[in-house]
Amino acid sequence: MIKVGVVGGTGYTGVELLRLLAAHPQAALQVITSRADAGTPVSQMFPSLRGYVDLAFTHPDDAKLEQCDLVFFATPHGIAMQQTRALLDAGVKVVDLSADFRLRDIAAWEKWYGMSHTSPDLVAEAVYGLPEVNREQIKTARLVANPGCYPTAVQLGFIPLLEAGVIATDSLIADAKSGVSGAGRKAEMNSLFAEASDSFKAYGVKGHRHLPEIRQGLAKVRGTEVGLTFVPHLTPMIRGIHATLYGRLTQDVDLQALFEQRYANEFFVDVMPPGSLPETRSVRGANHCRIAVHRPQGGDTVVVLSVIDNLVKGAAGQAVQNMNIMFGLPEVTALNNVPLLP
Amino acid sequence: MIKVGVVGGTGYTGVELLRLLAAHPQAALQVITSRADAGTPVSQMFPSLRGYVDLAFTHPDDAKLEQCDLVFFATPHGIAMQQTRALLDAGVKVVDLSADFRLRDIAAWEKWYGMSHTSPDLVAEAVYGLPEVNREQIKTARLVANPGCYPTAVQLGFIPLLEAGVIATDSLIADAKSGVSGAGRKAEMNSLFAEASDSFKAYGVKGHRHLPEIRQGLAKVRGTEVGLTFVPHLTPMIRGIHATLYGRLTQDVDLQALFEQRYANEFFVDVMPPGSLPETRSVRGANHCRIAVHRPQGGDTVVVLSVIDNLVKGAAGQAVQNMNIMFGLPEVTALNNVPLLP
Amino acid sequence: MIKVGVVGGTGYTGVELLRLLAAHPQAALQVITSRADAGTPVSQMFPSLRGYVDLAFTHPDDAKLEQCDLVFFATPHGIAMQQTRALLDAGVKVVDLSADFRLRDIAAWEKWYGMSHTSPDLVAEAVYGLPEVNREQIKTARLVANPGCYPTAVQLGFIPLLEAGVIATDSLIADAKSGVSGAGRKAEMNSLFAEASDSFKAYGVKGHRHLPEIRQGLAKVRGTEVGLTFVPHLTPMIRGIHATLYGRLTQDVDLQALFEQRYANEFFVDVMPPGSLPETRSVRGANHCRIAVHRPQGGDTVVVLSVIDNLVKGAAGQAVQNMNIMFGLPEVTALNNVPLLP
Amino acid sequence: MIKVGVVGGTGYTGVELLRLLAAHPQAALQVITSRADAGTPVSQMFPSLRGYVDLAFTHPDDAKLEQCDLVFFATPHGIAMQQTRALLDAGVKVVDLSADFRLRDIAAWEKWYGMSHTSPDLVAEAVYGLPEVNREQIKTARLVANPGCYPTAVQLGFIPLLEAGVIATDSLIADAKSGVSGAGRKAEMNSLFAEASDSFKAYGVKGHRHLPEIRQGLAKVRGTEVGLTFVPHLTPMIRGIHATLYGRLTQDVDLQALFEQRYANEFFVDVMPPGSLPETRSVRGANHCRIAVHRPQGGDTVVVLSVIDNLVKGAAGQAVQNMNIMFGLPEVTALNNVPLLP
Repeated sequence: MIKVGVVGGTGYTGVELLRLLAAHPQAALQVITSRADAGTPVSQMFPSLRGYVDLAFTHPDDAKLEQCDLVFFATPHGIAMQQTRALLDAGVKVVDLSADFRLRDIAAWEKWYGMSHTSPDLVAEAVYGLPEVNREQIKTARLVANPGCYPTAVQLGFIPLLEAGVIATDSLIADAKSGVSGAGRKAEMNSLFAEASDSFKAYGVKGHRHLPEIRQGLAKVRGTEVGLTFVPHLTPMIRGIHATLYGRLTQDVDLQALFEQRYANEFFVDVMPPGSLPETRSVRGANHCRIAVHRPQGGDTVVVLSVIDNLVKGAAGQAVQNMNIMFGLPEVTALNNVPLLP
Repeated sequence: MIKVGVVGGTGYTGVELLRLLAAHPQAALQVITSRADAGTPVSQMFPSLRGYVDLAFTHPDDAKLEQCDLVFFATPHGIAMQQTRALLDAGVKVVDLSADFRLRDIAAWEKWYGMSHTSPDLVAEAVYGLPEVNREQIKTARLVANPGCYPTAVQLGFIPLLEAGVIATDSLIADAKSGVSGAGRKAEMNSLFAEASDSFKAYGVKGHRHLPEIRQGLAKVRGTEVGLTFVPHLTPMIRGIHATLYGRLTQDVDLQALFEQRYANEFFVDVMPPGSLPETRSVRGANHCRIAVHRPQGGDTVVVLSVIDNLVKGAAGQAVQNMNIMFGLPEVTALNNVPLLP
Repeated sequence: MIKVGVVGGTGYTGVELLRLLAAHPQAALQVITSRADAGTPVSQMFPSLRGYVDLAFTHPDDAKLEQCDLVFFATPHGIAMQQTRALLDAGVKVVDLSADFRLRDIAAWEKWYGMSHTSPDLVAEAVYGLPEVNREQIKTARLVANPGCYPTAVQLGFIPLLEAGVIATDSLIADAKSGVSGAGRKAEMNSLFAEASDSFKAYGVKGHRHLPEIRQGLAKVRGTEVGLTFVPHLTPMIRGIHATLYGRLTQDVDLQALFEQRYANEFFVDVMPPGSLPETRSVRGANHCRIAVHRPQGGDTVVVLSVIDNLVKGAAGQAVQNMNIMFGLPEVTALNNVPLLP
Repeated sequence: MIKVGVVGGTGYTGVELLRLLAAHPQAALQVITSRADAGTPVSQMFPSLRGYVDLAFTHPDDAKLEQCDLVFFATPHGIAMQQTRALLDAGVKVVDLSADFRLRDIAAWEKWYGMSHTSPDLVAEAVYGLPEVNREQIKTARLVANPGCYPTAVQLGFIPLLEAGVIATDSLIADAKSGVSGAGRKAEMNSLFAEASDSFKAYGVKGHRHLPEIRQGLAKVRGTEVGLTFVPHLTPMIRGIHATLYGRLTQDVDLQALFEQRYANEFFVDVMPPGSLPETRSVRGANHCRIAVHRPQGGDTVVVLSVIDNLVKGAAGQAVQNMNIMFGLPEVTALNNVPLLP
């Protein structure tokens, strides 16, 4: 059994991690930390876990995380970068669901996240945890930077096109829509039901923190910088991201075959039949990404539709997928549940 | 492996059965019938099942259901009563999720469902599939009448009080609220998003088909007729039933202890701590019923709050629970998944 | 023109008051106060008001409310009781949308609201602003205590039965369901979209602040204390209250005629035809209360269904209705807009 | 008073027309037709209209529409083109909310709508009812083709850029999101609450009927054909369209000033301050279009955000606006109500 610790278990990615880990046959949940809620039974905060998780939240100072085999950070940005080194030194593997180790460019990270980075060397060591790109490196990684939700949906949609070099790289557009859980479990006015329900809006048009992460990932697979306009939107649903991606084709190509071949061996990436229109609910609660590729009216604009559950493939599920890879387990362990529809 | 057939797989209880059965280690899904959609791959209609269910819908005439060990009917009322006898004769066990075998009083059934009953003798044989009441009979049953969604939530909430004889039986009130999936997967005006969203209403106040079923169940546990007012409401959510139950106490009693003792050995009935306020989402996608019992201001009115997922404990999950019991499997097989929250 | 001030304009009742007042031909909005947002244009916080309200929020210290003819308090509890005396002394009329002047029993108020009352004598003077009961006193009132949302829906439903003396008064039940805007525009975890959406729950079962207000109102129309169980619920919609009321008939009576006669002259109370099932959306954005009365299966339990928009008839609309009455205007002024459906 | 008839009053655009016309001081609603619901009081189908609309639906054969001054068609496509000529001959003006007279290219219309056009000459006469472009022609028109919902939101967002000639015209992208009422009041599976709620999807990617309408409108203002990719999406809300528009700038320009100048005299088009992020709810129930223009990271991609209420500015409100213009009334008559927020 893998002894697992979770730092920061009171947010949505935290409770989702617990949901998945509770069903994991090789993971033994040892400790879940929370500074504010130490002592509170986890299932009191999340009654959905009654009968499945018997732990109470532990204060970080009492957590003995170094006795774990793996620690997940489901914390706000700026925490993992301070605590990871000690864990690695103690032989503990780390999967960080926050953004602390995602951007290779430290200056860029510091600009977008508004703080100094305390562990640039660990950024250099960290493996970006998108298994469909970095599976081999993840296998031997001590530290995995789990991708953001938008970056996962957007990269998986653009990768086949960029790897094949069939679209112009100067004018990519990613018009993305997220459910409200993406804003986290924080008492903020904008996320109130009476504010976010029955309405739709864009946000972060000036610049969203996931923009440099997406650009970095796309540049890596293409081998050159890409020009990307990224507009995220808030849509009145709980879970789910729908990315609508636009690129200009530079050559004729069988798009369907291109996508099917790229993901032929990826259990979690489902290239749907031609003409499909994936719905976010078709992946609700599951680690799948469903993708459809279109070429409207046969023009030179390719449109890719990519959906994930932002809390699963966009966060906790991908983190467990990375854990499975890091420990040599079948990659689908605890992740092959059927999505919840309706 | 239990060879399983599903008759009528295109509704919400059908797809939910498939979701649960796909993860069942002892069930082998043989056939799913649909008259209208014969030939269509199941996963084309429900993309959430892509990679999990490879069958196509089979026309009922070609289904060879008699080769199954168990057949689930997830059909409109009036179908199972016609087809069950032949299956039983062929040695196939049957769990009927429709109402065909629920009411012992044939005349009452015919009045509420507006048709003649073709198999009254099977009604006499059928076991009402509420395991918390009839577990022993279910073990040896050939034919189980799976309870309705409202009846499950309401009966589980009232049973401890009626069995203990601590409330007046002449004036029970069940004020129940259901998500819209309870109306089924039918193209009806009232169930449109633009009709049912952001609004709340009662329906069936004159009389709802689940009223006689609830009355029958409560009368059985109490040993006498009960007076019940049942008002169902439609609430803008997909899944979930919340029953708010009111009774007049006739004696002083430790309500919390009464409920805890009654359900001490029931994995799927969770009596929550005093003062709890169960949310429907705390059972989303799972077979649990969560119950809290209150005595507001210490008066003589007891208030029971009972929540289930109408498609799971209120339909497909309870059906699988019954299957597990009928075949001697651990009752929780394929049913101990953590609810999906948020 | 009536010079109008609004104290506390940043909550949902505040913005709703502004929406209604902006269309009021006899009201001139002079000042809207906010301590935290002084200086901010109102339409910056609420873009729906762009082009309709040109004021900025004024700091309370600069508000010169004494120059108004009428001041609305749309503040948290405990503010109006401190500021009202000075306004009344200056000849300004006051409509308080908070609970400060609703309960005649000062001790009860202090218990439920957890603070000492600073102006018990004004409580004695204040008129409870339910026009369907107190229209005559409102006409000459200096100070009106605007009713709570639940109390409005519940009282209007029970009043005909209690005035006529046709139900037992010891065991009334009010099972009420509210949209999330009823919780106010406050950054609280429970009101987040990802918490309150796609779920349903009861709250305040032990005791809700509106319980004593309802009891007081019902006792007044009946002339004796009443026994009431009140269970409020949170339903995933923005606006609307649906009260399902239960009483035990003590005599045979033509319920439909009773209700129709009671409200024959009330423009804002719509007694619907027999068998009706009012939806909250049928009053969305409007000052109407729609009521249907049922006697299920001809038994001795009467069921009343009563719906309002909690922000209009349950708050800002009723406040404007009271203003109209206090100033001798047609009662429907600025309030006869068609509800928004769908 | 203008004598007004409405053909097809049972859909969402129909009931919205009635809501607006009921408050119109110069419009006298004479007749509302419905073949299927003739004889039914309008307010029985739409209780929101109780007390405001006393008419019953009239069978088309009995409608005497030729006695009206103006007839609105709120019918499915293919009806207005058959009935308009007789009305015009009788001196009745017509505003058609369906698509029958929107496309100048008859062949294109017949291809997209799958039927032969019976009145091509009337198409030639009809004025496209986008007042911000065609106000002068609308003043004297006998027949107005009311624009579609997507075309309204998209055109108003692109027009300033195209008129000024500051973006490339070969690669416009319109990523649009609509509430579910856009699908109409039809009992269709895809529009069920349990299908459309808590999910998000694209549709019509291959080609949507509004595509040629948008292209025609943009080509007209630009004076040349434009290349447009249009991807509509379904979002779980009742009302509202949010269009996110992308264009490639061909010259440097003060975008904010460009938009403000273009719409300086348009009451219903609100160019918001720089950096704004319009929400659909900020126009709920109102005839406004709110627009914000962005240039993310100072690049050469311009992003325009444009929101309308699909049933108001996208249908019934714009129709009343056109009526006001055709009859020389102030354009805002019955349309200057404050949007409903929250």
